[in-house]
Amino acid sequence: MKGIVYKADKDMQVETVPDAAIENPRDAVIRVTKAAICGSDLHIYNHGEAFGFCDGDRCGHEFVGVVEEVGAEVSGLSVGDKVLSPFWISCGECHFCAKGLQTSCVNGGPYGFAPFWAHGGEIQGGQSEYVRVPHATGTLDVIPESLADSASDTKTLPLTDVFGTGYHAAVCGDIQPGDTVYVIGDGAVGLSAAHAATLFEPENIIVAGHHDDRLAIAETMGATHTINTSRDDAAELLAGLTEGRGPQAVLATISSPETMAFAAEQIEPGKSVAWVGMEVFLGAPEIPWDKAFFKNVGVKGGVAPVKSYLPTLWPLLEGGKIDPSPVLTHDMSMDEAATGYEVMASRQKGSVKVAITP
Amino acid sequence: MKGIVYKADKDMQVETVPDAAIENPRDAVIRVTKAAICGSDLHIYNHGEAFGFCDGDRCGHEFVGVVEEVGAEVSGLSVGDKVLSPFWISCGECHFCAKGLQTSCVNGGPYGFAPFWAHGGEIQGGQSEYVRVPHATGTLDVIPESLADSASDTKTLPLTDVFGTGYHAAVCGDIQPGDTVYVIGDGAVGLSAAHAATLFEPENIIVAGHHDDRLAIAETMGATHTINTSRDDAAELLAGLTEGRGPQAVLATISSPETMAFAAEQIEPGKSVAWVGMEVFLGAPEIPWDKAFFKNVGVKGGVAPVKSYLPTLWPLLEGGKIDPSPVLTHDMSMDEAATGYEVMASRQKGSVKVAITP
Repeated sequence: MKGIVYKADKDMQVETVPDAAIENPRDAVIRVTKAAICGSDLHIYNHGEAFGFCDGDRCGHEFVGVVEEVGAEVSGLSVGDKVLSPFWISCGECHFCAKGLQTSCVNGGPYGFAPFWAHGGEIQGGQSEYVRVPHATGTLDVIPESLADSASDTKTLPLTDVFGTGYHAAVCGDIQPGDTVYVIGDGAVGLSAAHAATLFEPENIIVAGHHDDRLAIAETMGATHTINTSRDDAAELLAGLTEGRGPQAVLATISSPETMAFAAEQIEPGKSVAWVGMEVFLGAPEIPWDKAFFKNVGVKGGVAPVKSYLPTLWPLLEGGKIDPSPVLTHDMSMDEAATGYEVMASRQKGSVKVAITP
Repeated sequence: MKGIVYKADKDMQVETVPDAAIENPRDAVIRVTKAAICGSDLHIYNHGEAFGFCDGDRCGHEFVGVVEEVGAEVSGLSVGDKVLSPFWISCGECHFCAKGLQTSCVNGGPYGFAPFWAHGGEIQGGQSEYVRVPHATGTLDVIPESLADSASDTKTLPLTDVFGTGYHAAVCGDIQPGDTVYVIGDGAVGLSAAHAATLFEPENIIVAGHHDDRLAIAETMGATHTINTSRDDAAELLAGLTEGRGPQAVLATISSPETMAFAAEQIEPGKSVAWVGMEVFLGAPEIPWDKAFFKNVGVKGGVAPVKSYLPTLWPLLEGGKIDPSPVLTHDMSMDEAATGYEVMASRQKGSVKVAITP
């Protein structure tokens, strides 16, 4: 079968990889109907060697598909079911799965990151024709019937990661009705966070970024204001909207030293900065701790336990309350995936996120 | 009248200072019956010049006393009332006072820190015979009748700051029944945090410090375990008590780069490290952000809004559910206050906190 592999930094290719097969009675094999490239895949694309990636390592952790085969110990799933997999495998039975923090599952781990953080050895990448899903009962969710057709894949696919992560940011930001919400970042997670924020009935949702084309998408997804911070002063806008007190929620989907510093500076006292960006791996947040002390400002966030949010999100998606599909600006065939990485990495005008149809 | 003033680093003295008087119709004048020296006063004692303190600056922010005089616009207080003042002056009327975050009051500020963080000019120090209290209606709480005698001063006085701060740590730590709570620090706030933690019915309360005499006091205040980390391995103890998952709450009453790093490393995934220590002014927490990301570990805390906790704490103190007085190991006259600072700063055996009786 075909799958996308890391060859070297800035070089992802489609290769023939071993067929997905049941290796453990808790496994299922999924035929992928649509996958996607994530911003975190770009970290691998750009710096894979530094993260320990080697030629041939499998990539991808966002996919939806159809159950092709189940192991003897899998329950709740049947061949032919249309399913979604969160980007993190979870057993469904341990202390943390029971608490809804499936990203801390003691038996789980993420797809497509084998060299440096998967637990228990290599786990297959989701950017392939078929995927072996360990702990299938705990990991997979059956997609509701009304969203099970392939035309709905672009709506469900973002729930695997980027919308789930944006929703996690909104939850961690503890948004209350009437709040002003400041979203840092106009990537797929930033747009998703703004869209998720609408569910909590804030008065203002400001999306900040550097790309006018993406900010235009933000406006279609719920942003009441956008700001291109390479041109305009966000602090001034925020002060004007909040009587100088700062936004009640800041969703730092880009979590660099500078954005986290700005978030902690700006946020209203007593609140916590929500953070979901992997930039902390490249540099510690430069939070002004003296100010944070007197403001009682905290930080809350991390990797999104998508699985725990799906029961909430399915009815919202079915009822049309959310539609995260606008983040998928491109759809390519598996054979074009190398180009897909280039399009996303170069932030080519109009590109946010690339879907891959095997 | 007499008051304690900063003269130079390591030199606090009792001097004659201007009599406290009504300067604003919202002021009250309090006759102090008991004051105390705080760990944060020791930061001034040791490094006052670096903080901008000058010869003659007034000190202290912990006191209880009797209303001597009230301004024309003060309500809810009468001459003769026994009152407690949180260490932070608050107007009681602004956005943040209404929310119970009186430490962010737009009209308030702390006592005894005039040179560098008081709002709106110098505010008198609480270590004196009388104190002018601005915004008296918002700031002061009348002490319940059963605790209004001078013999109860050692019970009520810690609520002004150290017990209120320990309680804030326990609240920020989100302690649930059955939890294991790890308290970092065996100073007055650490002991108070352990004592406050008992109110939330955890299974284990471990107090970690470097002073066996203080750890012995911790055991009388609710600690189920103590550990002298200059001798013993806290990580091993915590793993043993939590099946290797880590404590559900960590109350970092010492918030140094190292203690915050240890807290974030040890705490169970999905929880936030509670922090209330001013050590962040001396160095940023060295939180392992990569681990925090995957563990969904946050941080929450800061300066304690004591005023908002008093309605909860008064009945607990009256009913004997809490008794924070063991943190006051010494009681001295105003004239001995310079010695009191030396006793506390040198961590003389058996000393935790020094009360001052004018």
